[in-house]
Parts: sequence; structure tokens; C-alpha cells
Amino acid sequence: VNASPDIRTQLAASPALHPSGPRTSPIRSVLLTNGDIDHIAGLLTLREQQPFTLYSTGEIASVIRQNRIFDALNPELVEWRTIVFDAPVEIAPGVTAEIFAVPGKVPLFMEEGEVRTDLEGEQTVGVRLGAGGASAFYIPGCARMTGALAERLRGAALVLFDGTLWHDNEMTDASLGVKTGQRMGHLSMSGADGTIAAFSGLDIGQRIFIHINNTNPALLGDSPERAELEAAGWQVAYDGMTLEIT
Amino acid sequence: VNASPDIRTQLAASPALHPSGPRTSPIRSVLLTNGDIDHIAGLLTLREQQPFTLYSTGEIASVIRQNRIFDALNPELVEWRTIVFDAPVEIAPGVTAEIFAVPGKVPLFMEEGEVRTDLEGEQTVGVRLGAGGASAFYIPGCARMTGALAERLRGAALVLFDGTLWHDNEMTDASLGVKTGQRMGHLSMSGADGTIAAFSGLDIGQRIFIHINNTNPALLGDSPERAELEAAGWQVAYDGMTLEIT
Repeated sequence: VNASPDIRTQLAASPALHPSGPRTSPIRSVLLTNGDIDHIAGLLTLREQQPFTLYSTGEIASVIRQNRIFDALNPELVEWRTIVFDAPVEIAPGVTAEIFAVPGKVPLFMEEGEVRTDLEGEQTVGVRLGAGGASAFYIPGCARMTGALAERLRGAALVLFDGTLWHDNEMTDASLGVKTGQRMGHLSMSGADGTIAAFSGLDIGQRIFIHINNTNPALLGDSPERAELEAAGWQVAYDGMTLEIT
Repeated sequence: VNASPDIRTQLAASPALHPSGPRTSPIRSVLLTNGDIDHIAGLLTLREQQPFTLYSTGEIASVIRQNRIFDALNPELVEWRTIVFDAPVEIAPGVTAEIFAVPGKVPLFMEEGEVRTDLEGEQTVGVRLGAGGASAFYIPGCARMTGALAERLRGAALVLFDGTLWHDNEMTDASLGVKTGQRMGHLSMSGADGTIAAFSGLDIGQRIFIHINNTNPALLGDSPERAELEAAGWQVAYDGMTLEIT
């Protein structure tokens, strides 16, 4: 996310973001919004002996620390920081992150017995990123739009939001799975109870879907579903997308 | 690995290898030769509701079953089969796999106390693949060439072998890590005690390096090290490589 020009300059000038050495990655901070495989498995590829800081709630940290495969995160290089709701932390020079609970569930591989899919706690969080007075929201998983979440997002310049499915039953209808979107802890894009409808009237500048399942027809650039979401003022994120907010 | 033409025809005609459906992958069997992250993390991406059989030693199975993230492998779709040394199993129609111990170590994330890096047991194995009378060896990790291994490989038509490092100290010399190849359980390519020398005189048809670290200069097609291994009759594997044995 690019913020105002002076912030861009500040980021470009920061040695912390442009380290030199025989191997470099621009990644200096990782913030986990969820403890499920699609959110944490990438940590296993961050093993090239470069330091970074790992931010998460205590509950998400506990899921990972219980799991021995993540001992691959060398404690001499990876600094764990537990973060709490509504308390911004500086995750890069001039960039803050502030987390908040959104309805969701425990990771699939930690499910036991009856599963509540709209818990509001430390297992699924959204993030408000701030830099130079501008801000953006990043919410890759959300089971339900609550009144509190709607009020938090109202008037935002930019929201990146959970776009897993177009329709709650699309995986079962296509015989590609046995679960609905709701069972997986995801609000679907379409319909009277869907995300597009839930955002209507919230006066948000840029609305962008992320975290899109490969059954979602809106992934196809020429589908009627893509046309419908674009007509409603939404975009679908793509690799290499550059976002500007002021 | 392509075997004789009649076997190729047999594979092509097998419905088990060419399933139809809304989503298909040609993967029907997975055989683990090691329990470390680079060998097992790929299992986390095999979650598209397709059945497959997972072959491994009891010890490697135990590493994975202890680790809750692999509960993502749905037992209704993934059949675990424990395999033992020197007992071929049919992993695809007309294709057998037979495992044997090679010197190695426990996975990095399971290391405790002093680590033996040349254990010969169920933690690191090689595979002999057989089809239609032809055979090939696949050995992605090996800490040392033993007399027994040399005799097993002698006269083979094709061997795919651990090519992690060119030189045992290359990671420390380049300040890219604190470990030698031996500490990681890998024999290096070069030198009097290296793999190229160890294979000399074993009368092996095709010798191909796999599992190559990104510090290994032989990865570069125009390096002196690549020229040296090619002069010794070796090749470096690449994506999309097709191998023929008769």
C-alpha cells in the first residue's frame, strides 16, 4: 500500500527496508491475521537466515508455538511480538498496524467437536494500516458483518476484504467440497446478506476483494459475476497491483 | 521417469492416472524419503479433495502424525501406508518402489541435543523405482557413500542423487549460513570425498544431480563447476526434464 508521497520517500530511504547483503528480502515484518494453513505455511519458506519480526495475537502465536514444524523459525532471527486489539504498533518505519477482532473460527487443523464459525476473539483479526495520516484496512477472513465492524470501516479510503466465495453454496453445488462458505468462516460476495450488500452505504473509497477461492467465478475477468461486482464499485486484487491512498 | 515404450502406453491408458472430474491432478501416490520441511511441506498444498496414497517409513509417518498441521490430510481421502526396507510396493500401475536406508539425520525441527548426521535408519531413505524391467534410483539426501550403497547402485541405468552443495563449506564461506553440508546430512559434489568421486567406477548410465541448494555454483549453466561435473558424466536436473531408460 502506497501512502502519501513523503511517506513513499521515507520508505525508500529507510535502510531497514533496503538491506544490503548477499541475500536480501524486503520482508522485515510479518503480521498474522489467522492461524490457518493458508496464513501460516508461508512462514516455512522464510528460512534464509534473514531476521524479521512476527506479529500476532497470543492465541495465533499459541497455535504456531504448539506445532514443532515452526521450530524452523530460528529464535535468533525471528522476534515474536504479541499484539493486542486497538493498540497500533509500528511494523515498519512510519507504518503502523492496529488489529481488531472480526467474526471467524479456529484453524481447520485445530477444530474439535462442534465448531463455532463466527467467534469474535483472537483467532481471526482484521488490520488497520496507517502511514502519514492515511489508512487502509486489510481483512482477509470475515464470517459476518457486524454493526461494530461496519462502523469501524465507515468512510475508509481503502478496504481489502475477504472475497472467498461468490455464493455460499458454490463449492457444494459444483461437487468440489462438502462445506459452505459460512462453515469455513467466510461471508460470500453476493446476495442480500453478502459482502457487496453489507458495504453498501458505508461510504468507502476503494473496495477490493482478496483471498479468493478458485471456485469463485468473479476471478474470471470476463464473467457476469465480475461485471456485477465492478458495477457495485468493487475490484478484484491481482499480483503486482499498486494501490495509492491519500 | 519414462520407462520402456510399452510401459509408457500402459501408463497413458490407465484411468487411475488420468482421472476425470472438475478438478484433476495426476498425483495419486506420494512417497516421502525424509521428514524434513522441504520434503513434507508440499503435503499442505494437496488439499483439493482428491484422494492419494501416502507412502513412508514408520518413523517418517510418526514425525508427521505428531504434527497437528498435517491433520489437514483428510483421512477419508489420504491413505497412509507404512513401507519397509527392501520390499517393493506398486505405487502406480506397473510401477514399483523399493526403499532402502541411506546415511542421514532426523529433521531439523526434530533435532535435540547432539545430532548424528549419518544415521542409517528410517529417517532418510533412497528409492529404487522399477517398471517393465527397467529401474532408476532416487536419492535426494545422503550424508556419506557407504560400501553397501555403492554396491546397490553399481551398474544402474539411472541415478538421481543429492546435489545440495558443491563444497562442504560453501555456505559458511559465503556467510550465508553457519552449517556445513555434512552438518546438514549431505555429501557434497566435489573433492576427493565428494559424490562425483564416489560414483567413479560404479558403471552407472545416467547420473543426475537433484536437490540443489541455491548456493551451489553448479546450478549456473555457465559456471566452471557445471563444466566440471558435466566432464565427469553428470547432469543437473531441471524443471520439465524428461528421462528415458530402457
